[in-house]
Amino acid sequence: MIIIGEKINGSIPSVAQAIENRDEEHIRNLAKAQAEAGANYIDVCASVEDAVELETMKWLIDLVQSVTDLPIAIDSPNPRTCVECMQYCKKPGIINSVSGEGDKMEVVFPVIADTKWQVIALLSGNKGIPKSAKDRLDVFREIMDKASQYGIAPSRIHIDPLVEMLCTSEDGISMVEEVMHAIKEEYPDIHITGAVSNISFNLPKRKLVNQAFVVLAMKAGMDSAVLNPLDQNMMGMIYATEACLGIDEMCIEYITAYREGLFG
Amino acid sequence: MIIIGEKINGSIPSVAQAIENRDEEHIRNLAKAQAEAGANYIDVCASVEDAVELETMKWLIDLVQSVTDLPIAIDSPNPRTCVECMQYCKKPGIINSVSGEGDKMEVVFPVIADTKWQVIALLSGNKGIPKSAKDRLDVFREIMDKASQYGIAPSRIHIDPLVEMLCTSEDGISMVEEVMHAIKEEYPDIHITGAVSNISFNLPKRKLVNQAFVVLAMKAGMDSAVLNPLDQNMMGMIYATEACLGIDEMCIEYITAYREGLFG
Repeated sequence: MIIIGEKINGSIPSVAQAIENRDEEHIRNLAKAQAEAGANYIDVCASVEDAVELETMKWLIDLVQSVTDLPIAIDSPNPRTCVECMQYCKKPGIINSVSGEGDKMEVVFPVIADTKWQVIALLSGNKGIPKSAKDRLDVFREIMDKASQYGIAPSRIHIDPLVEMLCTSEDGISMVEEVMHAIKEEYPDIHITGAVSNISFNLPKRKLVNQAFVVLAMKAGMDSAVLNPLDQNMMGMIYATEACLGIDEMCIEYITAYREGLFG
Repeated sequence: MIIIGEKINGSIPSVAQAIENRDEEHIRNLAKAQAEAGANYIDVCASVEDAVELETMKWLIDLVQSVTDLPIAIDSPNPRTCVECMQYCKKPGIINSVSGEGDKMEVVFPVIADTKWQVIALLSGNKGIPKSAKDRLDVFREIMDKASQYGIAPSRIHIDPLVEMLCTSEDGISMVEEVMHAIKEEYPDIHITGAVSNISFNLPKRKLVNQAFVVLAMKAGMDSAVLNPLDQNMMGMIYATEACLGIDEMCIEYITAYREGLFG
């Protein structure tokens, strides 16, 4: 499972505060803690006004790279910010994100075409988030067509089918499961990702819902996720699920992760 | 999800001690706690020498019934003990268990035939636990043939496909999933159950493995389980999974269970 650590995000009040105060220690600690907890990428999202986004992103990325060698997931709703920030990164990471909306793909794809950068692509378009599996898969095909024009291999793409809150759903996660299955069947090498915590919006004991969702999503083909690696139960649950799914023969990884203190 | 509370079992050292000392309080508390935690049945297993099994079971069953109206799951490897104990029960419960081994079905099925009693049937036979899904399904068909001879409807049968420890498996739980799918497809009204904690034998942080397994098993069709209802994370995870699976529209049950303190 590819873990994209979500903790350095200006939409989290304590991080917003740290950004405002230019509290280097706070950011460094979050980066270090996530790296030690088993993250594979550190997501960096400034969530500030456009005028100061680039300099804030640079400040955050520099801090993260001062304490860990992990690659960065550059997280901005503005694709131009995403490509600008690539120059601050010491190694190829992930652009978070493009979608079928506006010119996002046109801005990002040519820049990452001949690189090792990966990209998260959301299945939303100019009309917002499609309601049906069929319409999301239409956006998916648009994205794959465009990616193929730029020679971006499926293995560099993380599709986010868009995890929505469970509390207003009449049939649970069946639609997202359907989308995941269809995508994996068509492109076995593609990654499927998601912003896991969206599922539990407005519900009590959100961590339990997040965990149940991740287990089911992994069964449906999810192999990448934007989540909080400091939630040790979540990390343990992911290792346990890999063992149940037969990805971790004889539970070697599960036991190793436990011994390394990644959960406990 | 049908929860069969597993805590009153003489193979648990503290319960063995309570049985030896005829510690009524200990047994009553375990029954009450499991009932309050959301169990639907209270499993009662003496795990003592044959000579004293019946009287011990009666003592246990009486104590449970003195504090809760929940039906009993009569748990003994001896089918004659199971049917003898039915007379101590105020209402129909579950016989735990029969299998394809020896004369178990012949002893139990005629006695429960014209009652409302249910039965757990393990997919093992005279040669032990079959290794392949195909061989377990052969035992399953034997059981269903026999049950049908006695007019026992599938809805009164809980099939335990036999959950085995994950730590020695090369392909996770795929075989058990296959068995569950095949059974549910053939008999949509049947229950699928299992002694959940077997999955995590010999692993650290067993509760996480148990939880991941339950989520995946529910996806594969499990709707009944012998487990510890005092594990609040497990109970919350079950409610969360039902919501994800679309069994609990708009998360009403999840939210209600949370408000009632069934997890928190």
